[in-house]
Amino acid sequence: MKYQKPKGTADILPGATEKWQYIEETARMLFSDYRYREIRTPMFENYEVFSRTSGDTSDIVTKEMYDFYDKGDRHITLRPEGTAGVVRAFVENKLYGPEHQKPVKLYYMGPMFRYERPQSGRLREFHQIGVEAFGSDAPSLDVEVIAMALDLLQHFGISDLKVAINTLGDTESRDAYRKALIDYLEPHFDELSDDSKERLHKNPLRVLDSKDPKDQKFVENAPKILDYLTDDAKHHFDQVRTLLDSLDINYEVDPEIVRGLDYYNHTIFEIMANAKSLGSGYTTICAGGRYNGLVEELGGPEVSGIGFGLGVERLILLMESEGVKFPNFNSLDVYVVGIGADTDVASLQVVQALRMAGYSADRDYLDRKPKAQFKSANKLDADYTLTIGDQELADQTIHVKQMATGKEETVAMDDVMTDFGAVVEKHFN
Amino acid sequence: MKYQKPKGTADILPGATEKWQYIEETARMLFSDYRYREIRTPMFENYEVFSRTSGDTSDIVTKEMYDFYDKGDRHITLRPEGTAGVVRAFVENKLYGPEHQKPVKLYYMGPMFRYERPQSGRLREFHQIGVEAFGSDAPSLDVEVIAMALDLLQHFGISDLKVAINTLGDTESRDAYRKALIDYLEPHFDELSDDSKERLHKNPLRVLDSKDPKDQKFVENAPKILDYLTDDAKHHFDQVRTLLDSLDINYEVDPEIVRGLDYYNHTIFEIMANAKSLGSGYTTICAGGRYNGLVEELGGPEVSGIGFGLGVERLILLMESEGVKFPNFNSLDVYVVGIGADTDVASLQVVQALRMAGYSADRDYLDRKPKAQFKSANKLDADYTLTIGDQELADQTIHVKQMATGKEETVAMDDVMTDFGAVVEKHFN
Repeated sequence: MKYQKPKGTADILPGATEKWQYIEETARMLFSDYRYREIRTPMFENYEVFSRTSGDTSDIVTKEMYDFYDKGDRHITLRPEGTAGVVRAFVENKLYGPEHQKPVKLYYMGPMFRYERPQSGRLREFHQIGVEAFGSDAPSLDVEVIAMALDLLQHFGISDLKVAINTLGDTESRDAYRKALIDYLEPHFDELSDDSKERLHKNPLRVLDSKDPKDQKFVENAPKILDYLTDDAKHHFDQVRTLLDSLDINYEVDPEIVRGLDYYNHTIFEIMANAKSLGSGYTTICAGGRYNGLVEELGGPEVSGIGFGLGVERLILLMESEGVKFPNFNSLDVYVVGIGADTDVASLQVVQALRMAGYSADRDYLDRKPKAQFKSANKLDADYTLTIGDQELADQTIHVKQMATGKEETVAMDDVMTDFGAVVEKHFN
Repeated sequence: MKYQKPKGTADILPGATEKWQYIEETARMLFSDYRYREIRTPMFENYEVFSRTSGDTSDIVTKEMYDFYDKGDRHITLRPEGTAGVVRAFVENKLYGPEHQKPVKLYYMGPMFRYERPQSGRLREFHQIGVEAFGSDAPSLDVEVIAMALDLLQHFGISDLKVAINTLGDTESRDAYRKALIDYLEPHFDELSDDSKERLHKNPLRVLDSKDPKDQKFVENAPKILDYLTDDAKHHFDQVRTLLDSLDINYEVDPEIVRGLDYYNHTIFEIMANAKSLGSGYTTICAGGRYNGLVEELGGPEVSGIGFGLGVERLILLMESEGVKFPNFNSLDVYVVGIGADTDVASLQVVQALRMAGYSADRDYLDRKPKAQFKSANKLDADYTLTIGDQELADQTIHVKQMATGKEETVAMDDVMTDFGAVVEKHFN
């Protein structure tokens, strides 16, 4: 019988994991400079956390959730996205309390789970990196979040980026806009897609989000949210633009970016990368925006939030297609060649001493002949090859070869084990 | 309505996540020195992967698995432990192929899931770090694995450690021992626990593992595996002991360590820490051993393996109780105080420039008064406080204060933004 990974999941193997480590480590360092701190929430939540925040009738909830009943008959769900769990944890752990500096800035990274149709080419277990900042309405926070996302992507070596922003205004703005949208779409009701017919009165913004060509022809001439903003909402958006300009961030205002969920407000944004190498022009790799109501929805006080998320698998594809050089995390300092079974103990001692001193060190574990061992040392690109044979064993010495220069030296075994750095300094520098 | 995390799960919040990061980063560095590379397998596997490797009738499979049917009616299971998934991936990705250097050395870290009874105090989502090395029978690999586990725990600041080892020999040894055990226990059949009565003929080693007092009184005088080893098995174990001695690793041979599962063989070990501060004497924090048959069980060729696992939650408890100092990952280089709304743009520019240059920088996002901002700078323990008021704005300067010395200086804003390191060098070193 063949055992296989579950459909839609992937194994990340050595060679690839180092790229993931690099991405995660880079993100951690950068988030830390912006004073975001990591939060880790469970891989699954009670079903209601997601049905509440994503909307009972959304595709995610109705078709894409990995939900099941545990042995105690609790309805639980593998997390389909990161925000809901972070908000749940923010509320449950009272991170809104006065002892926490505001905004409370958090980031997360890890697996998410959606039961996608296989033809979409998406993984069912995929990975996201995201941030959420709670408790400040300042436009400068919106701009910080956008600037941070850009800084992060640039750190990853992705340079040809476009920023598109829009605003959904405040509740009053959105109510006015919703009404205008309904008035505009209603005369065309019969021409809309079935989905959009259903959504027209409940959530007309989602009609603009529709990928159905039937709906798309109405998008271009639809009323624009920017014409329905209250003074406050307009002021917030103007401030965001002024501050983006002050940081020399190029962006365009794209009134066609909308978010169908009720809790988004004010600034929303997308960052697109030129993915010509992926054959697809500019493609969105990072999306985010302001939201309010979500903290209250999960039982907390009225606290606003803003965040973004990006998909790690897509990011890696992009970096690879852009030819980004990942650092080599797997360099080998020393390979120890032992000639003859009698050298097994000494080889172990030397290797272990070097590792405990912080060198990466390798050796043979298969009783292979010297030739095969030297071949390994070459193949693994060791900086130094150390050889121990009968003579060395008798003399308590080691033969050290610097591979880059070919320089060789026989030195006391004890010196290698107690201070290999000094040996290198003395003989090879 | 209150939304809560699922029973048996935990949120890891800022303040705690930094400890997790430190532990993971330390383990990565150390594993890399020993030439182990990370593998990441899915959070869930097909049910059969675990039922096959843990045994259909084991507690894990019958009572503790988070198993469920996905929307395509596939029986899947959140991974209860790390080894089975790694072995499945090893086989499926043909890591046993000749292009991979042997032994193939892998490590993993991440969440595992068991539906434990709540009274056990254990989490249902918990975390393990583990290693597996495939493809070498050398005793020196057994010793490397033990030495690496010790090195890791010592890196974590845990010093009072005990190593206990035992051997389960090869198949022939174990068959002879099993027979001797049955012969010894059979006369006491009626006195055994019900579980052990059932296991006596199927798997008598598990009777020795039993925590039931009824069974435990027979453990002391039970036959010892060491008396049933074949010459080959004895030689392997002698070699392991010689090599442990050569590394000055203190250990004791404890014939009462057994593993009930059929695929363990030769060396098994446990590392115990003196957890007096936890009120429990020496307690096992890391366990491992050799196994064979597991790779074949999951459809691969005959390849032996050896590994260990340790629980991260327990490790952190131990480190905290031992008073281990975790490094401060959250130090703040610069806090920027902006006095007056007009300084918002300049504050953003300065903060952003510093962050992009790799400094951690913070500011106010709540329009707070200067006094409150200075208080934040103090509370966050900033190395430098930078102040921008109307005068500075007019002069395009910034007032810089080194908090440790109280030294103050007014410098050009441009200098701060283009090379803060030079500013520090010139005025504060």
